Order: sequence, then C-alpha cells, then structure tokens
Amino acid sequence: MADAKIPYSLNSKAVAEATKVWMHKRGVTVTEIAELVMLLQKKYYPNLTMEECVHNVEMVLSKREVQNAVLTGIQLDVLAEEGKLLTPLQDMIENDEGLYGVDEILAFSIVNVYGSIGFTNYGYVDKLKPGVLERLNDKTTGEIHTFLDDIVGAVAAAASSRIAHRKQAEREQELGLPHAPEDVEEAAKKPAAGSDLPE
Amino acid sequence: MADAKIPYSLNSKAVAEATKVWMHKRGVTVTEIAELVMLLQKKYYPNLTMEECVHNVEMVLSKREVQNAVLTGIQLDVLAEEGKLLTPLQDMIENDEGLYGVDEILAFSIVNVYGSIGFTNYGYVDKLKPGVLERLNDKTTGEIHTFLDDIVGAVAAAASSRIAHRKQAEREQELGLPHAPEDVEEAAKKPAAGSDLPE
Amino acid sequence: MADAKIPYSLNSKAVAEATKVWMHKRGVTVTEIAELVMLLQKKYYPNLTMEECVHNVEMVLSKREVQNAVLTGIQLDVLAEEGKLLTPLQDMIENDEGLYGVDEILAFSIVNVYGSIGFTNYGYVDKLKPGVLERLNDKTTGEIHTFLDDIVGAVAAAASSRIAHRKQAEREQELGLPHAPEDVEEAAKKPAAGSDLPE
Amino acid sequence: MADAKIPYSLNSKAVAEATKVWMHKRGVTVTEIAELVMLLQKKYYPNLTMEECVHNVEMVLSKREVQNAVLTGIQLDVLAEEGKLLTPLQDMIENDEGLYGVDEILAFSIVNVYGSIGFTNYGYVDKLKPGVLERLNDKTTGEIHTFLDDIVGAVAAAASSRIAHRKQAEREQELGLPHAPEDVEEAAKKPAAGSDLPE
Repeated sequence: MADAKIPYSLNSKAVAEATKVWMHKRGVTVTEIAELVMLLQKKYYPNLTMEECVHNVEMVLSKREVQNAVLTGIQLDVLAEEGKLLTPLQDMIENDEGLYGVDEILAFSIVNVYGSIGFTNYGYVDKLKPGVLERLNDKTTGEIHTFLDDIVGAVAAAASSRIAHRKQAEREQELGLPHAPEDVEEAAKKPAAGSDLPE
Repeated sequence: MADAKIPYSLNSKAVAEATKVWMHKRGVTVTEIAELVMLLQKKYYPNLTMEECVHNVEMVLSKREVQNAVLTGIQLDVLAEEGKLLTPLQDMIENDEGLYGVDEILAFSIVNVYGSIGFTNYGYVDKLKPGVLERLNDKTTGEIHTFLDDIVGAVAAAASSRIAHRKQAEREQELGLPHAPEDVEEAAKKPAAGSDLPE
Repeated sequence: MADAKIPYSLNSKAVAEATKVWMHKRGVTVTEIAELVMLLQKKYYPNLTMEECVHNVEMVLSKREVQNAVLTGIQLDVLAEEGKLLTPLQDMIENDEGLYGVDEILAFSIVNVYGSIGFTNYGYVDKLKPGVLERLNDKTTGEIHTFLDDIVGAVAAAASSRIAHRKQAEREQELGLPHAPEDVEEAAKKPAAGSDLPE
Repeated sequence: MADAKIPYSLNSKAVAEATKVWMHKRGVTVTEIAELVMLLQKKYYPNLTMEECVHNVEMVLSKREVQNAVLTGIQLDVLAEEGKLLTPLQDMIENDEGLYGVDEILAFSIVNVYGSIGFTNYGYVDKLKPGVLERLNDKTTGEIHTFLDDIVGAVAAAASSRIAHRKQAEREQELGLPHAPEDVEEAAKKPAAGSDLPE
C-alpha cells in the first residue's frame, strides 16, 4: 500500500551527513577543530601540517560512535536553548552546572574510540579552552553549547590519538622495520560508488 | 661503541607477535574465541560463518590498545601463578577476588575500542562462561587466569561489535544505498612487505 | 527588582525529587528494580531480603551522577515518543537502533560509580531482559524506553555492587577482623532537618 | 591440621594498609597529592584549606576500587624497575611508551568512582605535571613511575570531584534549602572498634 510504513533501517550516510550539517549549523568548522589538534600535537611532530590535522578530524567524524555522540549532544544543547527540557534538567544544561557530567560522559565515548592515550589531551583542552572552545564557552551570547564544547575537545583529542598511531606506523616503515598494521580494512568490501569520504 | 644502548623505539610487530605467542602459551586459540563470537551473533546473522568470526577476532587482536591489555593481563596472571606478586595483590589475583575489578577494567578497554554496543555482550559471556571461558575459570588446575578469562570475553564482545558494524555496511550496499564508510584507511599508506595480517 | 532573575544555583533536592517523579511517570518502581537485584544476588547471599535490595536501589538513586543519567535518558525517551527529535536521531532512538550506543554509555556511567565489578551484572540483565526489562522492551506499546531500559539494568547492577561491598564489611566485622571502612562520611556534616533519605 | 590451608578471605584492612605502605615506599605523600588538589580547586573555593584537601585525598584512598588500582599500578612499576616483565611489556612500561595506555586506564578507574566531572582535572594535571608529578616523571633517576604518575594525578582529580560535591551540600545547608544527601551510610552498620579512618 502506498502509505504502508517503510520498515526502519539505519541509513549510515544520513547519519554522517546530519553530523556535518549540525556541526556547521552550530557554528563549528572542521578547520577550527584541526587547529586544536595542531596545538596539541605540533611539539611532538614539528612537520605536522594543517592538512593532516583536517584529514584526521574528518576520519574521527566518520565513525558511527562519534556521530551518535555528536548528534545526541547537539540535540540536547538545541533543546536547552529553546527552553524545551524538563526542569531541573533544563536548568542544569542551560547553566552548564558543574555537578552535571553527562556532557563529559558523551565526550569520553568519543575519545575512547581511539584508545586511552587521548584522555590527557581531552582534559587539557577542556580546562584551557583554547580557540573555538573559548567561543563555545562564552555564556553571554544566549547560545548554549554545554555538550558541543566538550564534544569538540574530544574530537580533537581523538584525532591526536589517531595521529600518534599513524606516525608510529610511518616511523617503522621509514626504518624498514617489519610492520604490523592495525585493523584497517574497510567496513565493507565493495565501497559504493560516489562515497565522498577520502581514501 | 659496540655496546652503547640502542635508544628505545616501539616495535609494533614485536608487540603483535608477543600477543599471539602469549595467548597461545596460556592455552587460548583464536578459534575458541571465534566460537564465542558465533554463540553471540548467530541469532542475528544466521549465515555468519566461522571463517568470518575468526577473521574478526584477528582484526580485534591487531589493535595496539587490545594488545596492550592482553599482554598486561597475562603478565599479571603469570606472576600470580608464580607467587611473585606483593601481598595482598597476590591473594586477590590468585583467588579472583570478587571485589578486585582491575581485570574487568582491562577487559573494558578492549570492548571500548569498538564502541559501547559491545558492553552487553561482554557482560553476558562473562556471566555465563561458555566454552573456553569455563575452562579458564576452572579453579582446580593450579593455573591462574583471573585476567585472561575477562580479556577473552572482551575480545569476543569487541569482535561481535565489529561484525555488527560491517553487516550494516554490507546491507546498505546490497540495497544500493549511498554509503558512508567509517574510518578505514590504513594506519600507514605503504604497508611493508611480509605483513602477515590479512587485507 | 521584583522580577530580577534569581541567579542559578543547583538544588540537589529538586534533582533527587525529579528523578523519583520521572521514574514513576515512566512506570518503573523501586521494587521492580530491587527484584532484578535479588535475581542477580540471591545465589551469592541466600539470606538477602527484598528490604535490603530496595534500600540499596534507593542509595544508588540518591547519587547525583546517577540522577543526571536517569533524567537525561528519560528526557530523550520522552522526546522520541513525542517525535520531537531531529532526524536521524529520532529514527535511531525510536527504533532502539543496534548501532546507537549512547544509551549504553549513560548506563555505564551509573554502573561505574560503584566500580568495575558491576560491568558483568549489567551486561547479563541487559541481554536476558528479565522482569521489568521485558516490559520496557516491548516494542508494541508505542512507548519508547530506549534509554530507561538500559538505565534500569544499570541501577540494578550498581546496587548489586553496593551489596557486595557491604556484605564484605559485615563479614569482616562478624569475624572480629580489624576493618577499614570505605569513604562513608556524609556529603555535608550537618544534614538538614526533614531529609527523607534514610540513615 | 596445622598446615591446612586457611581458606582465602579478603582482608580489607590489609589492602588499605598495603596501599598506604606502598605509596610511602614509592615516595609519594598524601600532602603532595593534597597540594595538587589545592592547585586545582583554590580558584573555585578561595577558603579551601590544606587540611580539607588532605582529608579528601584520604577519603579517596579509602575506597577499595582505588586501592586495587594503586596496588596493581605500583606492582607493575616495581617489576619494571627490577626488569622482571616479559619483553615487549618491559620495554613499553620502562620507557613510558606513548602508545601504551594501560596506565591511563587504571587512572581512569580511580577518577570514575567520583564521577565524570573529574575527567578534565585529571587530563589537566597529567599534561602539566605540576609538583610531585614532575618528580615522578623524571626519567634520569632509574626509578620507574609509569603507572604511579597517572595514579597520583587521578587521586587528585577524584579528591577534587569529592570536594565539589561536598561544597554544594554545604552551600545548600547554609541557604537553609531542603537537602538531599547522596549515598552516605557506612559500609557496615556497626563499625569495628579501633577503626582509624574518621566517621
């Protein structure tokens, strides 16, 4: 029948696209996150380029687990901005309450995907609030970024971890060492034509 | 000088090899872990083959984060078996003390690498102790597997999560949907010849 | 001025009350959660009473970290039920999508408060869905409990961990052993009159 | 019989004592950890005293979950110092390898006990290495503190979270607000005489 309900099926492309669209709507660019990565990593890799930082941020954002956290966090920020949450949750998120830690929990689920070595970088940028994080924390704008603030720091920390793993692999190859690649195969063997994510 | 100390540099191949060697020495095969994966996943994917399960377990074991947890856990088991730990840590690990949870913490760092959807599968096999887990939990052998027991369950849970992500990708491709692959590029662009991990 | 905005200040009583009210509105009773605890723990403590299980569930629910997770999770369930979330988040939560793991992440933040020994119990009940969890998972009612389902399992697992710690303390005291109590002092020294949480 | 093996039973006092003894042997004092807490918290609570910081560190160290992580981490440091670990684990811990994250994982199990609000403080001190952390990171001494370093930062972060929760409770009481105390009852109802931890 024409109006029969189509059974639900996850559309991973739609989730990936929504993540990009919503980060953009909330005023955060991939370049700004890449700048945090550069800040965190340049002392370890003096030759690191902004292009590499951007690429690693994009790879982090391509992970389903990361997309889920980004979308859920932004959703809660938006609803808090519109005043549509239940009291006292509305108050806690609106005021970025210090004893409310669900934002940190979502952020951590992002860091975790690239392993525990990112914990430190996350805490560091979350405390110092450089660059884009300072703007997201400005409480005078009427915008609410209680979740997005922590999420952006987490994406930067995860991208930093990703870079650390890759730089080790490159070093071993330059040294001609036998190398054991980590889990690298594509999520599906025959990638669909028209995929717009690189490599 | 001939005996000058060579500066330390991580050799990822050596870490990967040691992981395989030590799991084998402690009596656990990839096939046994794959059997746990089959047990967990066959009701969702009736066509799932043992070959796929084995492959996914191998991919999980190729991750550095996983190797670190496996080696650290087995090390503590071995030292406990030899009676070489400090009291009261020796007692707690030797007796698989219920209030000692560091084994669960290491196990969780493995599950986390493939995302939170593996939490449930980990707890389930850890409670029911099917297959290889029953043998590792036999307290009458003199062997101590306080850590390995949880680690094996975690590897099986992580492999199950990995399968869930891949099956979704396959489904979307069969449906001809536009597809957004997750982070899939190789850790290094030019894999060294002689790498013995597949794909 | 009479209508000047009162500066925000967390009201912990309001958060605690809202947690109770919202669990009740969503149809979950403390007794039902206590029944999950009994199911998980009776084989270890044959003399465990329902009264003890209820008390331990209440203690878990008195923790701020737990209340934050409960309120956030229920909020997302309610909004999904009302169809008010952004696509594709709406679809994923409405359909309890298998690759969406934010519900497990919130659940884990609850289990963690009482330590890693609760991981296994959480996974076990979340897989088997006994008692109240079966009802919360019924997809034919039009109600959406994607988050609450996991949260209830997590509260039961946390209460089980709490019992394990306390039973150890009781055992040591019965044996006349010198005992080292864990962090037990009140969050504030002079509890306000009229507090309705026990002890 | 004289030589019959006494059945194992956890002695919580012995675990608590060993934690103190081993931290002392490894050269870390409660006062030094309290100084990290003061550094992290003084800007939020100008009247915070060193006595309060010391007390909160002691409360954190009284938790079983924390003691387990401390003892396991110090054990691995000591064995690495003695060169008794298996290659390549020996190399990774001896050199505080950047891609080895089990130390961060143990640290995180400590922070988690007092909730996610401590994540940021942990990362911050772990990056900046103030006070005692600078000494523990000195790689020229022959001592190895790969684990203890992260653990000390985690204990300081956890104590900071504990203070944040208590200060909120105090504020509410001063304001005469109805107050909902968190889980505060003693782990056992009749504390043994001679217990040397307060309240």
